Amino acid sequence: MAIRRRKISVIGAGFTGATTALMLAQKELGDIVLVDIPQVENPTKGKALDMLEASPVQGFDANIIGTSNYEDTANSDVVIITAGIARKPGMSRDDLVSTNAKVMRAVTEQIVKYSPDCIIIVLTNPVDAMTYEVYRTSGFPKHRVIGQSGVLDTARFRTFVAQELNVSVEDVTGFVLGGHGDDMVPLVRYSYAGGIPLEKLIDKDRLEAIVERTRKGGGEIVNLLGNGSAYYAPAAALVQMAEAILKDKRRILPAIAYLEGEYGYNDMYLGVPTILGANGLEKIIELELTEEEKAALDRSADSVRKVMKILN
Amino acid sequence: MAIRRRKISVIGAGFTGATTALMLAQKELGDIVLVDIPQVENPTKGKALDMLEASPVQGFDANIIGTSNYEDTANSDVVIITAGIARKPGMSRDDLVSTNAKVMRAVTEQIVKYSPDCIIIVLTNPVDAMTYEVYRTSGFPKHRVIGQSGVLDTARFRTFVAQELNVSVEDVTGFVLGGHGDDMVPLVRYSYAGGIPLEKLIDKDRLEAIVERTRKGGGEIVNLLGNGSAYYAPAAALVQMAEAILKDKRRILPAIAYLEGEYGYNDMYLGVPTILGANGLEKIIELELTEEEKAALDRSADSVRKVMKILN
Amino acid sequence: MAIRRRKISVIGAGFTGATTALMLAQKELGDIVLVDIPQVENPTKGKALDMLEASPVQGFDANIIGTSNYEDTANSDVVIITAGIARKPGMSRDDLVSTNAKVMRAVTEQIVKYSPDCIIIVLTNPVDAMTYEVYRTSGFPKHRVIGQSGVLDTARFRTFVAQELNVSVEDVTGFVLGGHGDDMVPLVRYSYAGGIPLEKLIDKDRLEAIVERTRKGGGEIVNLLGNGSAYYAPAAALVQMAEAILKDKRRILPAIAYLEGEYGYNDMYLGVPTILGANGLEKIIELELTEEEKAALDRSADSVRKVMKILN
Amino acid sequence: MAIRRRKISVIGAGFTGATTALMLAQKELGDIVLVDIPQVENPTKGKALDMLEASPVQGFDANIIGTSNYEDTANSDVVIITAGIARKPGMSRDDLVSTNAKVMRAVTEQIVKYSPDCIIIVLTNPVDAMTYEVYRTSGFPKHRVIGQSGVLDTARFRTFVAQELNVSVEDVTGFVLGGHGDDMVPLVRYSYAGGIPLEKLIDKDRLEAIVERTRKGGGEIVNLLGNGSAYYAPAAALVQMAEAILKDKRRILPAIAYLEGEYGYNDMYLGVPTILGANGLEKIIELELTEEEKAALDRSADSVRKVMKILN
Repeated sequence: MAIRRRKISVIGAGFTGATTALMLAQKELGDIVLVDIPQVENPTKGKALDMLEASPVQGFDANIIGTSNYEDTANSDVVIITAGIARKPGMSRDDLVSTNAKVMRAVTEQIVKYSPDCIIIVLTNPVDAMTYEVYRTSGFPKHRVIGQSGVLDTARFRTFVAQELNVSVEDVTGFVLGGHGDDMVPLVRYSYAGGIPLEKLIDKDRLEAIVERTRKGGGEIVNLLGNGSAYYAPAAALVQMAEAILKDKRRILPAIAYLEGEYGYNDMYLGVPTILGANGLEKIIELELTEEEKAALDRSADSVRKVMKILN
Repeated sequence: MAIRRRKISVIGAGFTGATTALMLAQKELGDIVLVDIPQVENPTKGKALDMLEASPVQGFDANIIGTSNYEDTANSDVVIITAGIARKPGMSRDDLVSTNAKVMRAVTEQIVKYSPDCIIIVLTNPVDAMTYEVYRTSGFPKHRVIGQSGVLDTARFRTFVAQELNVSVEDVTGFVLGGHGDDMVPLVRYSYAGGIPLEKLIDKDRLEAIVERTRKGGGEIVNLLGNGSAYYAPAAALVQMAEAILKDKRRILPAIAYLEGEYGYNDMYLGVPTILGANGLEKIIELELTEEEKAALDRSADSVRKVMKILN
Repeated sequence: MAIRRRKISVIGAGFTGATTALMLAQKELGDIVLVDIPQVENPTKGKALDMLEASPVQGFDANIIGTSNYEDTANSDVVIITAGIARKPGMSRDDLVSTNAKVMRAVTEQIVKYSPDCIIIVLTNPVDAMTYEVYRTSGFPKHRVIGQSGVLDTARFRTFVAQELNVSVEDVTGFVLGGHGDDMVPLVRYSYAGGIPLEKLIDKDRLEAIVERTRKGGGEIVNLLGNGSAYYAPAAALVQMAEAILKDKRRILPAIAYLEGEYGYNDMYLGVPTILGANGLEKIIELELTEEEKAALDRSADSVRKVMKILN
Repeated sequence: MAIRRRKISVIGAGFTGATTALMLAQKELGDIVLVDIPQVENPTKGKALDMLEASPVQGFDANIIGTSNYEDTANSDVVIITAGIARKPGMSRDDLVSTNAKVMRAVTEQIVKYSPDCIIIVLTNPVDAMTYEVYRTSGFPKHRVIGQSGVLDTARFRTFVAQELNVSVEDVTGFVLGGHGDDMVPLVRYSYAGGIPLEKLIDKDRLEAIVERTRKGGGEIVNLLGNGSAYYAPAAALVQMAEAILKDKRRILPAIAYLEGEYGYNDMYLGVPTILGANGLEKIIELELTEEEKAALDRSADSVRKVMKILN
């Protein structure tokens, strides 16, 4: 029962992985291991060292190392997977899915080997299917494998709403179900500014435009960057989920969770409202949906299942 | 005397500029304008938007915009210059200096036009000469143009010492004078762990090795990354200086300051201990140096003057 | 347009005033002046000094002084009034009201004299009437005089709901209108956990019990303490309002605001949803109420008016 | 190896104990149990509840309870003892010592019973002797029982120096050995502003006056308050020590530690520079002292031994 430093490993040292490591360290959530493949071991070490050198100035204490050796991840409390490739021009979706699934299996085997008790959070796209793949490979109970999508989707939604109303982002909430991005099912009736339903504050047309912009939020950043995709907001989302777990906050956050009958789906991962705490997924919150919402969620689930099929 | 939001512009939206913007926003120091050239306006906007979308999750309120239009920087309180090119293989030092000096002149004219009362912090290398160039172009009083190098150099030193002693970075301090990196003049006798002079805690050889590693600290990251240079620790350093100014903290920090007789130098910029507050450079702290230290500082000053000559 | 340190004065150096000063300083919102009457000038100085001596350890920079001289409050950006007496056994309500109104007039004259541009936040009970008295005495425009009650009432509500559901307080929101405490009009239909209306998560009876406990929340603490009333949560509430103003956050927070027709009331102060920013009260948000809610709000307004009558 | 919420118990719910609980909670270091005797159980519960009700507004997640039942402290990671009486007019020092020693024994027995693996930090005065008493009663290894004095003494010193130089408290450090308050042995030569020895920045006379003021720092607050003693800075000091331990920061902080030959003393507690981490006292740092310093430390040790004698 001695006091033990916490440890978080981040798999994939690209922009998202590195930014995630930084934000974890800034919050002093534990020691950080940033992992990537041997071919980029040096850059991975370089990013970790650069971050560590920021610590005396930013005032945080955390060991941060870069490595390609999974032994260094041993006994992690939480492991975050950001590894995988982005879809490139000319690449079919099936190719993307197969490649990233292969990555998921490879990294999961290593994670499980060295941190058999950890909780895994997956970011890699297509995230619902990839989380499923990690779950299947890990042999972990479902509460220890979750995926990120809704925290990011609602963060974008909240940003756009705060701008529309010219109010603090802190007072705007959003609510989504289902898959990530295009497939997301926004529950606008559960979204508020200062507790006031958005429908009372924003015209229907504007609100629909905001929902649509949220849906395409990842693409908007991709188009602007020209070369690469978003990483600041995704990293922040991962860190919020990890913090909820590491501090046993029991936060109510949307997460991609394994369903066994909830919302009428089985043996698949899908974005639902959850409670996140020391055990990872503490609970799935079930809501009654309108017919329209249920239909949209069905479409979202279908879409996830189509991707999953590629993997069988 | 109404309450006014503060505003900070960051010129240059590369890794360092973008990370600086993020860290400024995380501390809610004011609204952020991230500026780069028209050719990369979209990526600049993309980074700013991505950061903004992190704000609901990280819990900070700040407008963050990307732009190539200096009008958007109007009435900034602090402007941070990270723009410029890095030295490329085959490029002579003179070419680097001339190119970046041209950049300094161009951005400074725009900064001064729109924010005639701002305080400017320069990071672009070779930073002593570039800060001088900005000073000269701006026509600002000396207390409103400073450069960054010592906060970063000491951050690296502190990191290495903390690792050596296996203690918190918070309790290790460092002290440097003179130019950045290779030219830095470490005052090890003014460096401590928990207030205890490092010379009493670390063998002379090990301590020299740490000083040498600090001196080459920028190169160590460049070599590891393979393609690019450090940005986390440099950004943290810039933000610490900006925070000292924006909150009028009167922090004692090393900064590149315009000298008029201090330490025996005139009409040049060099790294010295300073007090930073609401007026920018509030004071230069003069110390008696040993002969050895003074000789090293002379060499560092010579080296800065050589670069300055290229600019005349 | 130079950078100016911000300044906040807290009138009344009892537990609430002192805790407010501490929390303001911890957030580095500006320099703090803690003011009380000459008879307790020394204890006021003692508290301020003790707090200041905590600053090197807690890592905040702020001047904090204790004084009985209003000159020291000159040019405050925000002034918070916690001064006044608590109702003692045997004291009639009319006596309480008259005494505290006298205090309000006295301190307001001093505040206005030295900080003619400041924004005033009132905590003293009965807070709706006392805020009106400060407004009337100050001659300030209505947007620069507000009172605190709803942030505290909802904080208590949120605490009880979070305990009931065993979830993070961060994900629970509450919503009240009207007077403070017994007179508050909770809008449970605008209160959520993770965005989900509480009515879907908590039984009607339990929810009513929580509302009732919130209503009596101040009394619960008074009864437990035996001698004195709550100060931690009230101080936190005041600081949140001050922060929204000082950082121009435009937060949507309940505040006691001067009404000119809003919700059907005139020339009185009452708790309503507002936007708080650099101008103080930026906006009152008007909501359609159910008949039942409107009737409850009418009763709350009547109750405030009865107190106001004592003052005429 | 599951993630476990941390737990900190604070014994004594007076101003210092309560403020300590608040600051622990603000940092989300774990769940807080505030303990006092049955006679004041209700006020203890009241303070805890009031603090908890501040949590939604201040944005921290922590269970905070007040109790007189030590069962509630079971499995604490860290226990902080602030219980005991202050010296009252007419009370002999021997009476104070005997009374507080009795309190130490009583609370230590309860602490040990329910948290046999915890680390104990003692604040109760006379703190060197009281820490010894807790050590003796607990049967704990020496690394799990420490006392607070030097963090507070140096905090005061740093505050006064920062005021004298008009610089940020963050850049001033102090260094003390020996007993608390009057008995403290300041090592001014190890005290700096921005790394510069204070002797180079402040006149000898002024510096001596600051040392003297620090020595009497507790009394200065007592005199100002008129009724009671300092609690903000003492609480901050306790929390910094607890944080170093709970986050395994390995901070270099002065602490009252059990000596077995260090500095030439045996079987007694005295203030020395230490490293604090997950095991509590990780290390005592030994320094060479000048003759004058050693003589002062001897006097301080004698003074502690005199108090200890009362206890045998």
